[in-house]
Amino acid sequence: MVSIPKPDPTITGYTVRDLRFPTSLDAIGSDPMNTAGENAHGYIVYDTDVPGLEGIGWSFSNGQGNEVLCAGIKCLAPRFVGRKLSSITSDFATTHRNFLGGQTRFMSPERGVMQLASNAILNALWDMWAKVEGKPLWRLVAEMTPEQLVGVIDFRYITDELTPEQALAFLKEKEKGKAERLALALQNLAVPGYNTSVGWLGLSDAEVEAGLRKAVDAGFKHFKLKVGQGLEVDRKRLGMVRRISPDAVIMTDVNQLWDVDYAIEYMPKLADLGLWFIEEPTSPDDILGHARIRAALKPHGIGVATGEHVNNRVMFKQLLQADALDAVQLDALRLSGINEILAVCLLAAKFGVPVVPHSGGTGMPELCNHISHFDFVAISGKQSILEYTDHCHEYFSDPAEFSNGHFHAPTAPGYSCQITEEAFSKFECPEGSFWQSEKGQLMLNDPWRGCAAEQTSPMK
Amino acid sequence: MVSIPKPDPTITGYTVRDLRFPTSLDAIGSDPMNTAGENAHGYIVYDTDVPGLEGIGWSFSNGQGNEVLCAGIKCLAPRFVGRKLSSITSDFATTHRNFLGGQTRFMSPERGVMQLASNAILNALWDMWAKVEGKPLWRLVAEMTPEQLVGVIDFRYITDELTPEQALAFLKEKEKGKAERLALALQNLAVPGYNTSVGWLGLSDAEVEAGLRKAVDAGFKHFKLKVGQGLEVDRKRLGMVRRISPDAVIMTDVNQLWDVDYAIEYMPKLADLGLWFIEEPTSPDDILGHARIRAALKPHGIGVATGEHVNNRVMFKQLLQADALDAVQLDALRLSGINEILAVCLLAAKFGVPVVPHSGGTGMPELCNHISHFDFVAISGKQSILEYTDHCHEYFSDPAEFSNGHFHAPTAPGYSCQITEEAFSKFECPEGSFWQSEKGQLMLNDPWRGCAAEQTSPMK
Repeated sequence: MVSIPKPDPTITGYTVRDLRFPTSLDAIGSDPMNTAGENAHGYIVYDTDVPGLEGIGWSFSNGQGNEVLCAGIKCLAPRFVGRKLSSITSDFATTHRNFLGGQTRFMSPERGVMQLASNAILNALWDMWAKVEGKPLWRLVAEMTPEQLVGVIDFRYITDELTPEQALAFLKEKEKGKAERLALALQNLAVPGYNTSVGWLGLSDAEVEAGLRKAVDAGFKHFKLKVGQGLEVDRKRLGMVRRISPDAVIMTDVNQLWDVDYAIEYMPKLADLGLWFIEEPTSPDDILGHARIRAALKPHGIGVATGEHVNNRVMFKQLLQADALDAVQLDALRLSGINEILAVCLLAAKFGVPVVPHSGGTGMPELCNHISHFDFVAISGKQSILEYTDHCHEYFSDPAEFSNGHFHAPTAPGYSCQITEEAFSKFECPEGSFWQSEKGQLMLNDPWRGCAAEQTSPMK
Repeated sequence: MVSIPKPDPTITGYTVRDLRFPTSLDAIGSDPMNTAGENAHGYIVYDTDVPGLEGIGWSFSNGQGNEVLCAGIKCLAPRFVGRKLSSITSDFATTHRNFLGGQTRFMSPERGVMQLASNAILNALWDMWAKVEGKPLWRLVAEMTPEQLVGVIDFRYITDELTPEQALAFLKEKEKGKAERLALALQNLAVPGYNTSVGWLGLSDAEVEAGLRKAVDAGFKHFKLKVGQGLEVDRKRLGMVRRISPDAVIMTDVNQLWDVDYAIEYMPKLADLGLWFIEEPTSPDDILGHARIRAALKPHGIGVATGEHVNNRVMFKQLLQADALDAVQLDALRLSGINEILAVCLLAAKFGVPVVPHSGGTGMPELCNHISHFDFVAISGKQSILEYTDHCHEYFSDPAEFSNGHFHAPTAPGYSCQITEEAFSKFECPEGSFWQSEKGQLMLNDPWRGCAAEQTSPMK
């Protein structure tokens, strides 16, 4: 803890902005279910009475409908105006529970747009808190005492697997070796990266090959590719990785394209290529389906992963109870803030399943980098990997740094959420220069934008 | 089918309206998690090129945030402007799949606000279709051939339990006795009601007792009461029902208040009162938790029900696979339209679990009445019950009629979604007279409205 007296800011107001990067134009993020997405941010800035101090947070959508996410953020944001930060963080578990309650709860609960909106707001509060403490968020969390860490988590609906008392005992156990892990983090050796940018579905074979060679030179040993385009196409792409990086760990992702039995039939035919897991083989809601798929693929040496669309701790709890996962791919935006992310990290650690955050969207590596660092140092105590994508980092004030196959530990105080004004001038929707252009207007005015994958699904 | 040539309307535009009934003022809908809710509607009218023909649909929220639901409806509504109705209904399964796809899918998928928004739009399309066919919606569905009915359902993610071929064979089997069931429906004897209005948490004991005596006189034999206020309070209320209606079927509902182990500990202490089920004992996402609770309560003669917050067919599929339910309480607004409701009705029928729709909100009895009627006539073939609440029917152009303990079969063409202009003049938000009043403004400007239950939860 820093020794100079810390301010206790009062939140005085907020601004919500709609930002959309036209990523579909470069096939960034393209996959079997999302052929054309514009990585988009529902962005909130909480102003305070402390000069120069603000809390910045955002959540994520894929373009169209980002205004609905912004409406959700505007709906919930007033709940913290006029509040002192300490009145929120002093009993953050209760504040978090109350924040998810009330009339707005009925629309989900703890799912979809309102869950994303709660995330954006909580990210802004955590960003503010970390700035007040003068630490990067990962270190604020990593250096909390077990009591402080348990004190920010609402254990509602997970006490059948993890009580506050059990979490406390677990975290005290993990204090062993924490200093060494912190030291490793400060040497930028805590969080190895895996590469997804080489595997976007819309890339040409030449682009994939060039990207692979570049990634191997950058120290990547893990690669993820989109599949589901038919065995011939899939084998060609995956074979390219094996050829260029014979010892690589290869992951596959089909983004919810399949039904359960189809996944069980399809994946063994790729087993000879040596695959760690198939990601999102079916609906992210199908806990029992993922468990069946995992059991069926195990004899073939292929695991199962999911999480980027798993909306809350209750779903993750069950995926773990059902023995359905080889990796917990929680998303920094999908869950209800660091509070709920900590609950999921603790559940994953209890079950001994690695946390491998979903980080494939613009800005996600910036945020997930904090999560992977505090998970390693304070919770799991085990090294995992984090998804790296190379697009749009230039639009972030505190971009994720990567070298020697590892993410660097963030050093700036806060949660690295700030996006540059240059990005807003181009991509704020609808007033940014790109969206005002003829091409931008055409894209905005297509009500079926990105629906093509649905129309060509082999399951149809 | 009617013999006069039917129009094939083209959708020419739409209007979306935000309507909020101040139901909290009368404790309507009050329960352990929702102490103060304003039953609210995100309402859409699709205009057509056929004079006098429009498609009306709505989805539901609990007041605050209804503008977010309306934003979701406005986001998706343009997808059908310019389309002929026949181009939607001729391959409705594919249209439905494509409608749930695209960039907007990433925000959920098939959950929360965007799922509610898709529901409102699909309700308007089904309303328009039924009007064109000159039938009430329940009868349009009930009189479809098995082939026609299967043709409106997207089986994605449920084929491990139910394929289109299996559904077709099942429906052909159910053709036996269909004429007799249709005749019973036309005599208004198909759908018995159960009463929830007597059991709102916020009512005084005197109000509960008066309501019970009135309900017994109206022919009700089934009652549902909110519980979770402590054993003494709960036993007093439930005992009142037993005293006034000794042979009544009593249902209990705790609206997600508890954790799994708490539910298993609490409910057996009420078993001597003779209870059919506990509804929503914990998180609606906790499939494995519901299965554990049901197994634990079975020896005590108490069942488990849930559904009003179950967002899609994939969750219902698993609740059934896990043997977690005694009643499938699907909600007319929560699922993605009649298309997905039919998939859930078929799954429930396959597992032999009765469909008992959630119908506790303003206007829900009007819509669910159609569902219960077509489920009885064409799908399950078995009589179930439907939740009846007595508030706000006067604001619906085609209100649910009830007598002799049964819902009447709707007779007007369409889906009974139309709400009167009188309702909008008072309760449209924010311009309606009530919301412009001092009291209305105070309610609208309370960002934590309805959060009290969270703050007094025994699980906190």
